[in-house]
Amino acid sequence: MPKQKDAYKPMMFRIPESIDQDEYVVATYLFSDVKVDADIVNKAVSWAVEQSTGTWMGVPSETVDVRVKFGAKVVGIYEIPAFEMLPLPEDVTKSQFIVRIAFPYVNFIDQIPGLLTAVAGNITLTNSIKLLDLEFPKSFVESFKGPKFGIEGIREILGVKDRPLLNNMIKPCTGIDPDTGSKLCYEAALGGTDIIKDDELNVATVPISPLKERVKKYMGAIKRADQEKGEKTLYTANITDRAKRLKENALIAIDAGANALMVNFTVGYSALRELAEDPEVNVPILLHPDFTGAIFNSPYSGVSSSLIIAKLGRLAGADMVMFPSPYGKMGLMRSREITIANTLQSSFYHLKRTFPALGGGVHPGVVSPTIEDLGTDIIIGVGGAIHGHPMGSIAGAKAMREAIDAVINDIPLEEAAKKHEELAVALKEWGVYSPEKKGSIYPL
Amino acid sequence: MPKQKDAYKPMMFRIPESIDQDEYVVATYLFSDVKVDADIVNKAVSWAVEQSTGTWMGVPSETVDVRVKFGAKVVGIYEIPAFEMLPLPEDVTKSQFIVRIAFPYVNFIDQIPGLLTAVAGNITLTNSIKLLDLEFPKSFVESFKGPKFGIEGIREILGVKDRPLLNNMIKPCTGIDPDTGSKLCYEAALGGTDIIKDDELNVATVPISPLKERVKKYMGAIKRADQEKGEKTLYTANITDRAKRLKENALIAIDAGANALMVNFTVGYSALRELAEDPEVNVPILLHPDFTGAIFNSPYSGVSSSLIIAKLGRLAGADMVMFPSPYGKMGLMRSREITIANTLQSSFYHLKRTFPALGGGVHPGVVSPTIEDLGTDIIIGVGGAIHGHPMGSIAGAKAMREAIDAVINDIPLEEAAKKHEELAVALKEWGVYSPEKKGSIYPL
Repeated sequence: MPKQKDAYKPMMFRIPESIDQDEYVVATYLFSDVKVDADIVNKAVSWAVEQSTGTWMGVPSETVDVRVKFGAKVVGIYEIPAFEMLPLPEDVTKSQFIVRIAFPYVNFIDQIPGLLTAVAGNITLTNSIKLLDLEFPKSFVESFKGPKFGIEGIREILGVKDRPLLNNMIKPCTGIDPDTGSKLCYEAALGGTDIIKDDELNVATVPISPLKERVKKYMGAIKRADQEKGEKTLYTANITDRAKRLKENALIAIDAGANALMVNFTVGYSALRELAEDPEVNVPILLHPDFTGAIFNSPYSGVSSSLIIAKLGRLAGADMVMFPSPYGKMGLMRSREITIANTLQSSFYHLKRTFPALGGGVHPGVVSPTIEDLGTDIIIGVGGAIHGHPMGSIAGAKAMREAIDAVINDIPLEEAAKKHEELAVALKEWGVYSPEKKGSIYPL
Repeated sequence: MPKQKDAYKPMMFRIPESIDQDEYVVATYLFSDVKVDADIVNKAVSWAVEQSTGTWMGVPSETVDVRVKFGAKVVGIYEIPAFEMLPLPEDVTKSQFIVRIAFPYVNFIDQIPGLLTAVAGNITLTNSIKLLDLEFPKSFVESFKGPKFGIEGIREILGVKDRPLLNNMIKPCTGIDPDTGSKLCYEAALGGTDIIKDDELNVATVPISPLKERVKKYMGAIKRADQEKGEKTLYTANITDRAKRLKENALIAIDAGANALMVNFTVGYSALRELAEDPEVNVPILLHPDFTGAIFNSPYSGVSSSLIIAKLGRLAGADMVMFPSPYGKMGLMRSREITIANTLQSSFYHLKRTFPALGGGVHPGVVSPTIEDLGTDIIIGVGGAIHGHPMGSIAGAKAMREAIDAVINDIPLEEAAKKHEELAVALKEWGVYSPEKKGSIYPL
């Protein structure tokens, strides 16, 4: 038994070049607040073992062969600060470590639940470990279909080539009947909204707004608006529900005329994937990141925002993924915003590109830094600043479209506002973003 | 021009899955002491551009196509601590970042100098960037031959299957003539040393000990010792010299009977590679890590010890690589020791495994933790504790072999010392390592 224990080290702590990259998913962890010069190698190896073949002690059937084939391997340990020799300065008592572990995906093959259990299972019960990233080999991703439409598909449906899209959340979030909601839909669409979405709180089982009736009335209103404005509008009906009713809801909504769907993160990525890969679900799907804050917000534990919201959401097949804006009411850190958006916009083997959709306290005054950060392949989500515009919802949507047009044509907002009353009123009401006011403009 | 500048972001900051891994060398950097929530994306992208196709401003011929094909890409940005949303706690004002940049090796193809210029060129002139690791694709490493002998080849020459090898540095380091040195060689070899090496200071041009005469006399002494002890001994003659004399020196030494060679890090990896890949240089080569401390010791800048000493040394073809022991006079941090050794011992495509050789204040009392950390595929380097042993050099070497035998047979050193006077005297003189005394036992 001691010999078996000793056999861990050379096998389980390896250089990246020692593994066949095509057979492993590589996870990057942050391990915080550790005593400096700790025995991190044994610690990291014990996590790799715990998350693949082993437990807290050797067991007879966990042979060397089992470990070589099925064991996760530590492929990188980086101590921060990166001292090399002792003695250390006296005030250096704690370190942080980046640890990279390669998981052979033969242990879970092609499913997201098994993947999450491997890379963020029991290991997350240890304090001070945060999963920052996963890197997937091509062969693993090949078993995923990803988004059916993606950025290019949605642009084609809408006939909008290259400007950012405008998204509106119906507000009030919930508690309104289909007639009230459809009036808001009509106005938002008419004002120039490209994508109208239910609020995440307006799930499929809200009694005051039954899904089928809601979709019929909303789509009717949208069709009227579309004819008047000469543009197309998508409506993402929120079908969030228990697992067994999800596909049923999707078909009810599509049958009632919905040209898009929406699910909350709370349905689970595995359920989202079944929807997204189902040929009968032939409309784009928007993913809302509710609940993910409970997973990504700790700097020391959980899973990073770009992984839990963006990379896994895209892998599961979301065509559009919402996340908080750094310039809105929730104040996402700016480099997280860019990382999330790039994760959705970059090439990712055969997977279509997913539309980044920013929201949360967004108004015309923050359009400029948003496009500056992410380019034009984005959806700008606006709720309150459309339905709460002093001149009404139509003017609210117009003000946003005017702001978008001004920014992509390099016209200062204040200049554009001289020609557009709706925009002028919006800027007066909510101001224009400037770096000095950076951060959470409207802290909750 | 502004459009070209904007075109950077989506192209130059990407997810790892967006690049063809076989065409890129991935560098992992630590960027320290940065204002929290800094504009790290633009910073990192500007480094990637600076180290590949671009400069501090766009130039007309740096087209989008040039950037896509030849530009380095940022493939990971991890802020530490890993906050996600503002506002941050008031005492959090500084961050550190791990930044991963993928370099298309089409920019330098198969040479080490060009590689270093790309991954650690001008970028190292920026303060607070330390290069922690490089990950090489198979296709890049294929153009390197690596070590000619490696661990298995050296074991075969010596006929030693699985115990750690004992290495002795002739001391005094320099300033001794070939006759004095050969007497020390004879004694060290007779006592049980497997590999005798010149000190790094005893370079090829030391006037008091001309290379040819030195090798002849040392090898003569070693041959006599080998016959008496019934074991083989390697002698790594230090041929360190200006570039154009390096191969000449190698052939002089081999011609004079040297069965191994040694170069200091100061000759440069490119020169080492020419030696190692030369079919006429048909003996193992030991690399000494002198000068590397100037490169790896800062926690905030330079290049990590495991990369500069181990991974690049192995790539350049060293059969044995020396580095400081955590239990000796120089106190390498323990996880660095393990990382260096694993980098040499792990599989690395077709490259043979390089023997990790630890030295610097090593004596019989520290053999146990060394083997515990790294296993038995190591060389234990001992200078002073052999030639400074109170009973003389033969006894000094014997004491080391006795310590090695005791540890690999699970016999406590104090127990073994009851049967071996040389070991007892050594333990009395230098003590036995215990974790409480961990760190730099003999600080310089």
